[in-house]
Amino acid sequence: MIAKSMEPFLAGSSVIRAMFEEGKKMAKVYGAENVYDFSVGNPGLHPPKEYREAINYVNNEMDPHLVHGYMPNAGFESTRTAVAENLNKRFGSEFTAENIIMTVGAGSSINVIMKTIFDPGDKQVVFAPYFVEYANWASNYHAETVVVPPNEESGFEPDPEALKKALDPKVKVVIINNPNNPTGAIYSRETLEKIAEVLKEAEKEFGHPIYIITDEPYRELVYVDKEIVFIPDLYDNTIIAYSWSKSLSIPGDRLGYLAVSPKSDNVEEFMAAATVANRISGDTNAPSIIQLAVERCLDAQVDIPYYKKNAEDLYKIVTEAGFTAVVPQGAFYLWVKSPVADEKELVAAAKEERILAVPGSAFACPGYIRLSFCIANETIQRSAESFAKLGKKYFG
Amino acid sequence: MIAKSMEPFLAGSSVIRAMFEEGKKMAKVYGAENVYDFSVGNPGLHPPKEYREAINYVNNEMDPHLVHGYMPNAGFESTRTAVAENLNKRFGSEFTAENIIMTVGAGSSINVIMKTIFDPGDKQVVFAPYFVEYANWASNYHAETVVVPPNEESGFEPDPEALKKALDPKVKVVIINNPNNPTGAIYSRETLEKIAEVLKEAEKEFGHPIYIITDEPYRELVYVDKEIVFIPDLYDNTIIAYSWSKSLSIPGDRLGYLAVSPKSDNVEEFMAAATVANRISGDTNAPSIIQLAVERCLDAQVDIPYYKKNAEDLYKIVTEAGFTAVVPQGAFYLWVKSPVADEKELVAAAKEERILAVPGSAFACPGYIRLSFCIANETIQRSAESFAKLGKKYFG
Repeated sequence: MIAKSMEPFLAGSSVIRAMFEEGKKMAKVYGAENVYDFSVGNPGLHPPKEYREAINYVNNEMDPHLVHGYMPNAGFESTRTAVAENLNKRFGSEFTAENIIMTVGAGSSINVIMKTIFDPGDKQVVFAPYFVEYANWASNYHAETVVVPPNEESGFEPDPEALKKALDPKVKVVIINNPNNPTGAIYSRETLEKIAEVLKEAEKEFGHPIYIITDEPYRELVYVDKEIVFIPDLYDNTIIAYSWSKSLSIPGDRLGYLAVSPKSDNVEEFMAAATVANRISGDTNAPSIIQLAVERCLDAQVDIPYYKKNAEDLYKIVTEAGFTAVVPQGAFYLWVKSPVADEKELVAAAKEERILAVPGSAFACPGYIRLSFCIANETIQRSAESFAKLGKKYFG
Repeated sequence: MIAKSMEPFLAGSSVIRAMFEEGKKMAKVYGAENVYDFSVGNPGLHPPKEYREAINYVNNEMDPHLVHGYMPNAGFESTRTAVAENLNKRFGSEFTAENIIMTVGAGSSINVIMKTIFDPGDKQVVFAPYFVEYANWASNYHAETVVVPPNEESGFEPDPEALKKALDPKVKVVIINNPNNPTGAIYSRETLEKIAEVLKEAEKEFGHPIYIITDEPYRELVYVDKEIVFIPDLYDNTIIAYSWSKSLSIPGDRLGYLAVSPKSDNVEEFMAAATVANRISGDTNAPSIIQLAVERCLDAQVDIPYYKKNAEDLYKIVTEAGFTAVVPQGAFYLWVKSPVADEKELVAAAKEERILAVPGSAFACPGYIRLSFCIANETIQRSAESFAKLGKKYFG
């Protein structure tokens, strides 16, 4: 017997995760080298050696009671201070440990933030295409998700005017994901400034804070000469959700943080509530050994030029096969226009060629498919023939 | 601005955690060696060397993509299989990987189970004294907690007759915590059989499953010759919540599992829903490096005779000071009767002697205090004088 509230999830379980499992099955049948799995964003690059050395150091040289024991629910003071100082160094911000909570990844950060903010019946606004879990996470707190339609003409920048129309007094949260999953777009300063303006006006009108949750796991994965605007500079009620899953290639190890802008509304109360929310989520705290290891390699990164080459190679292969795609500016996704209105047809046809992709409808944006290129460059090279065959089906 | 639903938590934030922070402050003032911190169950023993060696092996010898990458949300197939086989070896059960989900600790296990089972307005039954977080976790899913009063005469065994009275059609869950936090009691087979009988009758009467969640992080910490009854043998709709926090002394690293009895109602549907619940909690999966390390040392344990000596020494010190206490059979807590009705007075008086304890009211059982003895034996020895002074205040 399961809860009634869980039943809808069984019907529509994660398309992305289903692809992940499918890819593993196909690899067994055809051989891993003959399956081109562009479905899940499971980073193929190894973590930088600094991270693995840090794990060794923490595990072998430090006091085991400290390394494996409980710490305050918000995380080690030393880790939170190091994270705050690292942000300040890079962005000229003024965070302290008191603005930071270490979490079990960005997904956990966002859940803690939502639990802290949402009462049942509250709303969040997301911009399509958007990461499907945002809506599932909000539903954990009985909050509704208002979807702003995709803004194709602008290269999938969020549309401030459409945001304005979506706002009402129940909206407490707007989610920004930059660089973007699934489009690979990096949002312009102009757009983000307009969004900040719209929200400041709405805050005045409705008389309560509207928080921007800026989900930034791809912050470092940038392939063009374009700034990643630091949103707390534009808008006070901003909360950053970050994860080292992509920048250190450690998605399995589960570490992230939330950082509440020191300029945001009643920071102290917010942090007290968020610390409780983190505790009673059942997580208790973020994994201690991972906290201490990451604290020791905050400036380390995976081999980002490798992903840049992947982005360029895959874009070339896909467009030479006849498809139209958005040039990836960041993250590790290629967003490809489907030549048929129902992009699930394209996904099925691609699977015939042993190419696994995720349909845009899984991101509330039918008519596109997402290709995740955080895989081995050789796999991308080897997929060229399959893409060429797939292109022939549609473009002759 | 925080959610209305979070406001009550700020007023009554965790007493245990407040003590934990207090202890750190006092250690700075008086010196760590002069503070006797019996507040938090933060294991003082180091993890067994097998665990630290396993971390080294996994970090240095295995494929980094496997070690630090995503795996299916329920956890590594290899880890889940190893856990199932380890349970079967020890308890003659018939678990497979399909009954197991790896989680971010037992607290996370219980949240996943609750999310899977509870609709708003459902109820759970707990036996006082009980771990306070059970009620907070249920409130995450808008479920109510019905508290069965403490059964002092029986040595704090749960009372099957009182359970019977607490049941109604809204009750979906009964929580058992054995060995028990905070009493140190190990429940007798007779009591547990009676509880199983009561619940089987209620299931028939109400026409739906009532799940026992058996929270067993202290399963291996046993100091007397008394069996830990394996509840799935007595009752089909049983779900085990386990954590290696205590048996391996790795509470910070966050690893646990939930195991659904293969004989329970509609296992396949339950597991599908629980896997989604685990994913959308924001955790995504349990920390991968920790999963693979623990998989390699499932039979390792901390130095349990050390805790046994702690149990005996602290019991002796406390009773020689004049207090009455429950003989700890398992877990790592001494449950001491307060000589004054308001045990918070005793906690305050103890603090004057630099002894930190948790009041029983934090476990819905005023009139007692909890002393956590998972600390250095020397600290226990050194506390004798302070306990003697404290005893003099009450017993002359």
